[in-house]
Amino acid sequence: MTEPVVPAARKTYLQGSRPEIRVPMREVPLTNGDAVVLYDTSGPYTDPEQETDVRKGLPALRDPWITERGDTAPYDGRPARPEDDGRRANGAAPPRAAFPPRRPRRATGGAVTQRAYARRGEITPEMEFAALREGVPPEVVREELAAGRAVLPANVNHPEIEPMVIGKRFLVKVNANIGNSAVASSIEDEVEKMTWATRWGADTIMDLSTGRDIHTTREWILRNSPVPVGTVPLYQAVEKVGGDPAELTFDVFRDTVIEQAEQGVDYMTVHAGVLLRYVPLTARRKTGIVSRGGSIMAAWCLAHHEENFLYTRFRELCEIFAAYDITWSLGDGLRPGSIADANDEAQFAELRTQGELTKIAAEYGNQVMNEGPGHVPMHKIKENVDLQQEWCDGAPFYTLGPLTTDIAPGYDHITSAIGAAMIGHHGTAMLCYVTPKEHLGLPDRDDVKAGVIAYKIAAHAADLAKGHPGAQAWDDALSEARFDFRWEDQFNLSLDPETARSFHDETLPAAPAKTAHFCSMCGPHFCSMKITRDVRRFAEERGLAEDAALDEGMREKAAEFKEAGGRVYLPLTPGGG
Amino acid sequence: MTEPVVPAARKTYLQGSRPEIRVPMREVPLTNGDAVVLYDTSGPYTDPEQETDVRKGLPALRDPWITERGDTAPYDGRPARPEDDGRRANGAAPPRAAFPPRRPRRATGGAVTQRAYARRGEITPEMEFAALREGVPPEVVREELAAGRAVLPANVNHPEIEPMVIGKRFLVKVNANIGNSAVASSIEDEVEKMTWATRWGADTIMDLSTGRDIHTTREWILRNSPVPVGTVPLYQAVEKVGGDPAELTFDVFRDTVIEQAEQGVDYMTVHAGVLLRYVPLTARRKTGIVSRGGSIMAAWCLAHHEENFLYTRFRELCEIFAAYDITWSLGDGLRPGSIADANDEAQFAELRTQGELTKIAAEYGNQVMNEGPGHVPMHKIKENVDLQQEWCDGAPFYTLGPLTTDIAPGYDHITSAIGAAMIGHHGTAMLCYVTPKEHLGLPDRDDVKAGVIAYKIAAHAADLAKGHPGAQAWDDALSEARFDFRWEDQFNLSLDPETARSFHDETLPAAPAKTAHFCSMCGPHFCSMKITRDVRRFAEERGLAEDAALDEGMREKAAEFKEAGGRVYLPLTPGGG
Repeated sequence: MTEPVVPAARKTYLQGSRPEIRVPMREVPLTNGDAVVLYDTSGPYTDPEQETDVRKGLPALRDPWITERGDTAPYDGRPARPEDDGRRANGAAPPRAAFPPRRPRRATGGAVTQRAYARRGEITPEMEFAALREGVPPEVVREELAAGRAVLPANVNHPEIEPMVIGKRFLVKVNANIGNSAVASSIEDEVEKMTWATRWGADTIMDLSTGRDIHTTREWILRNSPVPVGTVPLYQAVEKVGGDPAELTFDVFRDTVIEQAEQGVDYMTVHAGVLLRYVPLTARRKTGIVSRGGSIMAAWCLAHHEENFLYTRFRELCEIFAAYDITWSLGDGLRPGSIADANDEAQFAELRTQGELTKIAAEYGNQVMNEGPGHVPMHKIKENVDLQQEWCDGAPFYTLGPLTTDIAPGYDHITSAIGAAMIGHHGTAMLCYVTPKEHLGLPDRDDVKAGVIAYKIAAHAADLAKGHPGAQAWDDALSEARFDFRWEDQFNLSLDPETARSFHDETLPAAPAKTAHFCSMCGPHFCSMKITRDVRRFAEERGLAEDAALDEGMREKAAEFKEAGGRVYLPLTPGGG
Repeated sequence: MTEPVVPAARKTYLQGSRPEIRVPMREVPLTNGDAVVLYDTSGPYTDPEQETDVRKGLPALRDPWITERGDTAPYDGRPARPEDDGRRANGAAPPRAAFPPRRPRRATGGAVTQRAYARRGEITPEMEFAALREGVPPEVVREELAAGRAVLPANVNHPEIEPMVIGKRFLVKVNANIGNSAVASSIEDEVEKMTWATRWGADTIMDLSTGRDIHTTREWILRNSPVPVGTVPLYQAVEKVGGDPAELTFDVFRDTVIEQAEQGVDYMTVHAGVLLRYVPLTARRKTGIVSRGGSIMAAWCLAHHEENFLYTRFRELCEIFAAYDITWSLGDGLRPGSIADANDEAQFAELRTQGELTKIAAEYGNQVMNEGPGHVPMHKIKENVDLQQEWCDGAPFYTLGPLTTDIAPGYDHITSAIGAAMIGHHGTAMLCYVTPKEHLGLPDRDDVKAGVIAYKIAAHAADLAKGHPGAQAWDDALSEARFDFRWEDQFNLSLDPETARSFHDETLPAAPAKTAHFCSMCGPHFCSMKITRDVRRFAEERGLAEDAALDEGMREKAAEFKEAGGRVYLPLTPGGG
């Protein structure tokens, strides 16, 4: 069992209409006898009553739901090959089976996507699960999925996930990128990063590994992940052709998608909108093409002087995605990599093509998200959401930040949390986190935590600004604890209780300080909250009941406003003195 | 000499119309032979050609300017008293003179404020200095000061400052609060915090000390500060009456203002807008009154059932402020302390009174800023600026954050950087920083740095969004360095070069990595920037000159948009494949 974020918290479950629909929540008990129940992404790891073993993987929660629908069947699957793990075909062994082999499933007939079910009016257990998490009626989830305004990423081969929904009518979600690269990291590190990221609140994770052992790393992550997992299949496809984008073919790409589909990847970033004719639009940019996938496809297009095969063969991919319920995350390969390049012709040309592809995918019953930037100054953020919503029929927007300035490498979790909060407020459904190491190096454990926390702040600030029902209850509970000097409750209700507690203890470490009616900032004499209590008591003693005082104040004020009529006056001695 | 932020940077000066108008800037030399010149707040400490000694204080740069105006004269000043340093009058020694005693100055006739000069059409050396820093004509500074839309805080007894201007037409400024409290800290710590905060970019500092040695701490800070210093005189006044708000009198307050005016405090927070009738409006709040000054005055009002003496005697204070050129920072004593209390009746009632007081102060030629919140969800931020600008005749707004959620104690530099960036974009002139220790403890050196950096990010993001001339040049220079793999330049141009460099070196520590055309995030094969260069080269080799390719792309796109007319089409095999 992983140490829970809030040591005092209890894992609790909301019970659905069938026994196995048990939605995990974090219940924070308060010292005044109340409790606050919060959304929880940490999976079975934080439930003391569940035994977990990363070598065995998580229980297959969704198995009965998938099986009983009767629209998929197991099959033999694609055999593992040495190049799946980035090794040359000559002589190397294929990837070792990390887990007991199991036969993958796929559709036996039409689309087996949550969207297809939603369109038919079916509320699946997955939808009910996600609705309970959000605190909304299941019908709302179904309706949003059917309309394509939300996605519920849930590959039929990833039965371990606790279903969740992404869409602007729901809580703003956070994705954490993990993944090794050719230079650093290991399999164990990546699995640990996944449990670590979800412990702090990541709603999905993306495995962006590019080096060796890609296949095996992904298997470990998928079998242990309680949240949906996304990938960029292009990275692995390029590894399979020795790292040269020009050598890519649709067949290699398709093979990689099948390989990952069978493993259970829930959503895939595909840069199908990087068209040949858009590439020259990037030539005058400050920072050209900064998306790896975008630059790979641009290089392919120019090398062959042919249109992007992800675009020309898009419908074939839609058929695959429908057969496993893989959610599209249509990549923004031409996103701006600097303030100077934001909202330019190249970016919006690709977005328009994302819109075309979103409509095509809808024909196949596919679930679709659209990826967005990047680096965007604050005054250009809203336009991104507005155009995406218009051109992509309200599909969920999924943005990387955006960073609102380029001048703070080392602090891009902050430059981008500003943009992320704003773009979330304007309707973005999921925010891809940025860590302090962005542009500089690979995130370690501390960076992953810093990135997730900054993005939980941005997402929650957006939920508040959107007026999401129930969002403010969390702030209210914490503020009430603060005003009541219930220090333990204030710590336990915070996004990062350990840090809050340790910051407090740096100045006032003794246990009695946790119940003291003042703190180190102002000392005992100057505590405004203490004085406010005195003020209230004073008013009560003098017979000024709060309500009466309030009403009187309001009456006076109202009269004053009417009388003043915009005139400025300053009575020099209204109350004497 | 303090170690400069950018080891490679040179201190450079912009020369004004007279020899001593030398405006310090930070020149960052780049490895490609270019250089970027940035605004610099770090004072003489980072100039290797100036010798500094905190026991002697900084040179009195403004002395000749103040003297030659001939409208002030030195006088004996108020004698130091034991209670100035928070000691009881019985027997304790008065504060030791920390620096060679000098006689304070005050006006011999009318107002000696920069606003009064501006109204008369005079461009003072202070205005010219500030204009050079901003890169605008001096007339713009004069015009904004005259209209009350900007302030140039510069007490005639603080000749050491390098003048700067605060107003929405100028760069967004950052204030850092320092100050001991009854529980922790020391004089040396506070002076060190000041030089540390300005090293990272704080434009002004506020000394919020409340415990012992207030007078002496302030003297050390003022004599060593190259930036304007603000205070909240009420804190010291309450100390003088033994910590009981009910014992306050106008005379004690006035005496404190004179004491601080003679020392050279440049701006003072005064909670003159907390009126007796507004206090009951806070009774139903989640978090009552959270401003120390606000709660002290509320307690006084209720205890005496009289109107706030800061309001009733406001004109007397205006006369004092005019005689020393102290800038008003009209306090927001009823600012919201939680998301639930944002933009409520109590807050806006006080803001309206701030508007009345702003107009009164204008009669006396005073310079005026208005303080603002606090805790405000994103969708309620703009209203704060709009009402302040309307009711306070466009006076500079000076806000604390605002924090956009209450749930992240330990990370309130981030919750509030989001709000600060937004409110700066909407027209706030100065942002009061919030450190990670907010609500939990006193900021240490690391917290001060974290707070200043987060706020420099917010301020610069706001400058970009406002389209401030020249702001984007910094981002462009850094992004160009990034795209060119000029790692050293990228580090040196960043807000915190040390951190950027150390993050890079964690993964790729060797010196050659600083010139490598890839980095640890993607490794050598997957670098999108490298691929982009290949794309450009490829296009050139094939005779596709960038301009021609661009034009062709634009033509095609234009034609396509016309032809499509909103219709969606997907040519399945446009280029074959």
